[in-house]
Amino acid sequence: MKPVSAPVAVFDSGIGGLTVVSALRRELPGEHIIYLGDTARVPYGGKSRATIERYSEEIARFLVAEGAKMVVVACNTASALALPRLRDMLDVPVEGVIAPGVEAALSATRSGHVAVIGTKATIGSSAYADALRAARPDIRVTSLACPLLVPLVEEGLFEDKVTDAVLERYLAPLRTSDVDALVLGCTHYPLLASAIGRAAGPQISLVDSAANCARAVARHLDASGLRAPASSEGTLDIIFTDPPDNFLAVVRGALGLEAGSVQVRQVPPLGQ
Amino acid sequence: MKPVSAPVAVFDSGIGGLTVVSALRRELPGEHIIYLGDTARVPYGGKSRATIERYSEEIARFLVAEGAKMVVVACNTASALALPRLRDMLDVPVEGVIAPGVEAALSATRSGHVAVIGTKATIGSSAYADALRAARPDIRVTSLACPLLVPLVEEGLFEDKVTDAVLERYLAPLRTSDVDALVLGCTHYPLLASAIGRAAGPQISLVDSAANCARAVARHLDASGLRAPASSEGTLDIIFTDPPDNFLAVVRGALGLEAGSVQVRQVPPLGQ
Repeated sequence: MKPVSAPVAVFDSGIGGLTVVSALRRELPGEHIIYLGDTARVPYGGKSRATIERYSEEIARFLVAEGAKMVVVACNTASALALPRLRDMLDVPVEGVIAPGVEAALSATRSGHVAVIGTKATIGSSAYADALRAARPDIRVTSLACPLLVPLVEEGLFEDKVTDAVLERYLAPLRTSDVDALVLGCTHYPLLASAIGRAAGPQISLVDSAANCARAVARHLDASGLRAPASSEGTLDIIFTDPPDNFLAVVRGALGLEAGSVQVRQVPPLGQ
Repeated sequence: MKPVSAPVAVFDSGIGGLTVVSALRRELPGEHIIYLGDTARVPYGGKSRATIERYSEEIARFLVAEGAKMVVVACNTASALALPRLRDMLDVPVEGVIAPGVEAALSATRSGHVAVIGTKATIGSSAYADALRAARPDIRVTSLACPLLVPLVEEGLFEDKVTDAVLERYLAPLRTSDVDALVLGCTHYPLLASAIGRAAGPQISLVDSAANCARAVARHLDASGLRAPASSEGTLDIIFTDPPDNFLAVVRGALGLEAGSVQVRQVPPLGQ
């Protein structure tokens, strides 16, 4: 049993998961959070299940060895493909972003037709569609892989004609449908929310996992008696596997995140 | 000393280096070629020197352990950042793509003003500009990082309005200059040659490293007495670190490459 003062660990393939950290700081201001961005191997979204499982397992073992009392998979691709394996393997609670996103979509839709956008690997896994149908068998789901959005976000093209043209093409199927809720199934996408909203049209609500994920983490901590006392002062430490570039500063600024430390470390490989 | 029948090993972060393999097959039809694409960690172009050196060293050691008589770094980013380290470390000849690209650019320019496009890491290293100036001190060099081109190629958008819009923006500075040779400083870019040619304008010749790199490899093999006899039948074996997707078939088709085997293997980490 870990102490209540132990950190909550959050990981993502890159820096997009900081959108989840931002929601966690609001929901759980007293927690010590460690964020790991696997920037040496980013992106995960075009890679295979075996590779994504291996990377996720390496990182989760590393974070638990660092003392984490809970692991949050703030990456849709890793959540879609590696969550069952991490839950089997770890003896601390593990929360991903798929179930929280599904919950948000089901609250938002009235037509019963939900769309999901994500990386190739996330959409190919059908994790969102499966979870939506498991929760509500009559739901209709339109799933769209949008592989160019992560590179556009990482170039900082949040408001740009090129981004609009790419979104126009990806989201065209939604304009003639009765979809009324669109799941942003990648932690980078909230940074494109305005452009996505314009391309999707005003009849579609955008939903993301961050706030619901933070609430799910709070429930896990309460259920296991691991929540830090309200009097404690929360901190954030950031680890990258490759030195971050300027984009980190842009994102931290956009999210208003203060970090105690930013380190570069390597994650040990499995079975060595 | 390796036998003449030993393979020539070629590596890249992904599959772009197959453009170099295609030139090698033409130049050296009798060689056994092993191609390794590090698709589990692709792309390299936004990563740091330390990480790119480490990945390159891991792969080169692996390929020499597989019996390679020579290592060809068919990745501009790895050539720009890791070539000196690989040459120090390996006891087989190592050829990259920077010097061959520089040679091609110097043959092509009349104005003495050359442009280079590449990934952030390649352009940030200034490896092309330094090598161009070392070869011809009065040369003028315009270097442009074009980070969205690799994702566009990997989406297969060779001929597309979005690609044209992105190129239009990246290459705008060339339209009002006296640049007359443009180095395609990334092995993905030859697949966009038509679109790049349109955006650059008819006064600019496109040059890439592939043919010159293949000739440099032939010279190394001849100099060290390692060239396979003309009577031998060349073969190509491909290794990826992550299972390839459909794009491999597209590229192999475009390049007319027949492969004997395609395997997925892991590259052992250093110092384990």
